[in-house]
Amino acid sequence: MESDRDAIWNIFRVVISPGDTYAFDPAMSRRDALAYWFRSGTWTYVAESKGKVVGTYILRANQPGLGSHVANAAFMVSPQARGTGVGRQMGEHSLEEARHFGFRSIQFNFVVSTNHTAIRLWESLGFDIIATVPGAFRHSVKGFVDVHIMFRNLVD
Amino acid sequence: MESDRDAIWNIFRVVISPGDTYAFDPAMSRRDALAYWFRSGTWTYVAESKGKVVGTYILRANQPGLGSHVANAAFMVSPQARGTGVGRQMGEHSLEEARHFGFRSIQFNFVVSTNHTAIRLWESLGFDIIATVPGAFRHSVKGFVDVHIMFRNLVD
Repeated sequence: MESDRDAIWNIFRVVISPGDTYAFDPAMSRRDALAYWFRSGTWTYVAESKGKVVGTYILRANQPGLGSHVANAAFMVSPQARGTGVGRQMGEHSLEEARHFGFRSIQFNFVVSTNHTAIRLWESLGFDIIATVPGAFRHSVKGFVDVHIMFRNLVD
Repeated sequence: MESDRDAIWNIFRVVISPGDTYAFDPAMSRRDALAYWFRSGTWTYVAESKGKVVGTYILRANQPGLGSHVANAAFMVSPQARGTGVGRQMGEHSLEEARHFGFRSIQFNFVVSTNHTAIRLWESLGFDIIATVPGAFRHSVKGFVDVHIMFRNLVD
């Protein structure tokens, strides 16, 4: 829906503009942002509360072909909806969806180490930090900070 | 050069077809392979010996924007040229190129754990395994095997 795209862009824009959680250029255009969020091979979701879009996430294979059984996902919550549990709800939903699509695990490639809220959330949903990439994010305020790679198995 | 594209496709095709080192679908088309190898934001190189292309590699940023100071690279050697040192030469060349472009480090996202030759080479060039992703590669013969993420700093 076109109104969803407007809502997604509004969230995307305010989430990336501080330059503290995502690698995307804080000045990324609407066009590039939506092309990325809706690109081929990606499932795109929105979370609604009282008829308003308060969050959005994408789910996809982290690699092509022989690596396509590992999922990847990215999440954004509207600043007005922070602290309402929408991030957790989307996280839980993404695990169900990933299992439904037959993925065997989920990998996050780029969790900024200073994003403590996100790390706590993913750990509480069963993800482990499997690597720390030194200085891989250029934080707008803190300079070069580490990035975590996080992983969760979906099968026994 | 169009003849380089032919040579790259010949190497690419035989490297991916066994399904033992790269995630790419072993049946990937020439068109998709070259689109990937020459995609926007990627530097593409060939290694020649006696006027023949014996290897190829790509270099690019591993992430956009605020993560674009970390490089990523991928390497392929013609089966006929294995054991001649061309992989090492391309590896060393990529480190120089990455430094020249101002990258601060290099990250490999997907080194298949059974690809011992590659792992030994990268370790000898200063890379460390910073993570092991359980079962992230569906090896054509061995089934699900682990994948390493490798990393090397380029600055002090």
